[in-house]
Amino acid sequence: MIILDGKATAQKVKSELKEIIAKRKEEDPSFNLSLTVILVGENPASQVYVNNKIKACAKVGITSGLVSLPATVSEQEIIDEIEKLNNDDSVDGILLQLPLPKGFNESKIINHISPLKDVDGLTYIQQGRLYGGKKQLAPCTPMGVMRILKEYNIELEGKNVVMIGRSILVGKPLFELFLDANATVTVCHSRTKNLKEITQKANIVTIAVGSPEMLTADMVADGAVVIDIGINRTENGLKGDVAFDEVSKKASYITPVPGGVGPMTIAMLLSNTLIAHDLRTKNG
Amino acid sequence: MIILDGKATAQKVKSELKEIIAKRKEEDPSFNLSLTVILVGENPASQVYVNNKIKACAKVGITSGLVSLPATVSEQEIIDEIEKLNNDDSVDGILLQLPLPKGFNESKIINHISPLKDVDGLTYIQQGRLYGGKKQLAPCTPMGVMRILKEYNIELEGKNVVMIGRSILVGKPLFELFLDANATVTVCHSRTKNLKEITQKANIVTIAVGSPEMLTADMVADGAVVIDIGINRTENGLKGDVAFDEVSKKASYITPVPGGVGPMTIAMLLSNTLIAHDLRTKNG
Repeated sequence: MIILDGKATAQKVKSELKEIIAKRKEEDPSFNLSLTVILVGENPASQVYVNNKIKACAKVGITSGLVSLPATVSEQEIIDEIEKLNNDDSVDGILLQLPLPKGFNESKIINHISPLKDVDGLTYIQQGRLYGGKKQLAPCTPMGVMRILKEYNIELEGKNVVMIGRSILVGKPLFELFLDANATVTVCHSRTKNLKEITQKANIVTIAVGSPEMLTADMVADGAVVIDIGINRTENGLKGDVAFDEVSKKASYITPVPGGVGPMTIAMLLSNTLIAHDLRTKNG
Repeated sequence: MIILDGKATAQKVKSELKEIIAKRKEEDPSFNLSLTVILVGENPASQVYVNNKIKACAKVGITSGLVSLPATVSEQEIIDEIEKLNNDDSVDGILLQLPLPKGFNESKIINHISPLKDVDGLTYIQQGRLYGGKKQLAPCTPMGVMRILKEYNIELEGKNVVMIGRSILVGKPLFELFLDANATVTVCHSRTKNLKEITQKANIVTIAVGSPEMLTADMVADGAVVIDIGINRTENGLKGDVAFDEVSKKASYITPVPGGVGPMTIAMLLSNTLIAHDLRTKNG
């Protein structure tokens, strides 16, 4: 059994990115890569995530900006800030930290972000592009899953992939990425009736449902690849959606929590910022 | 075994639509519903399809327009025509007949259609909306499949649906519609390795690959629902992707070819034209 080391893979992605950015600056002293995060309200978890993103930017040489708005802001004021950033040629990526405080229409606001600066890949246009086989900027967590699979040379073509979870942030874009890689993909969810029977047939199982240790050893085949995209705060500490101790005894490859998919998300956000820059300046 | 009668169901959809349109006109004499088709070049099959669409419009009381352009037209000229129709308040739906003659960038051109007039549901924005759970206008053939299943009260929630084919026109939007209906969905394609083993487990099988009579009786479970979205011209006449004679002996429900999914496509196009009108005039 091999543990898929997301921390090391994320570090590798960031190191490569740092090198690319340094080289670009060398070639063109005016080159600058910049990401602006919009944070609405004072959710402590969101503040931690935003800080981590800003720190990660600094480490690879991306300039970061933070637009911090009170929870009492109006929808239009958030949209106005987005429009300002859309029109600011020095900004490559715009990230609206989710979730917004209650009462905001998230998808309406997100769709004001210029698709070419949408580093989270959540605008309808970027989702539609992914869906239509014309990917530009795809959501960071699913991109991180694909990157870690690639790092360990795990073949996807013709494999049976069973996904549990169908969220817009993770499940649906991940489905597209697996399908693009020519896997046969099954999407399961809370209404699936014979889950265990389905997951037992999978070469690769992914789970992103937010239910601690839900995927147990009896649900996976010997030698399966298991990707845990859940992070749950429990009385016993951080737990994934996979019962790691027992499943790891059957799996050929498995991601731990923490240190698996988690660290990949920020690495792919940084990587998307470069993609966004190139899309806008080189017309993709 | 029950044959899913697409011809009768399409007729029902059209009759209902005709009634709604007549009632709307009664309530508001200025009410008019209009669809414009853009045809580029002289592909005889496309000409037949366009004629059928125009005739179907007339039957339910939709005003139709045809913009016929020579194959020698430039990309920009097509886009200019689209922009004109986008800005024409009397036009509710714009349909670009596909395929375009070789050499055109179809997706670039399609994405100039106003999403609110995109009755084929092929712009990135409409695809992204479908994908993100905010459907407005979805592609007609998959909508037709859902409509015929509804007509026969075939339950989808928790069912195992196996789809063969993953095109942008049919497979991918159909996947979304099945998932929205809480089915467990598996998408198979040419790189799938153990197809028969997978289809045998399905409560519902759909196929849209363009391979005459590919789905044989040994591939389906007793009592399965079989939806044939293929149309193939063969030496022995029109054939679907399903070997109808043998599969119909095992299926509980099955669509014939012709007379199954085919007639539903135009019915849903007409229905989408009304949806488009309402989206634009009532803000959805």
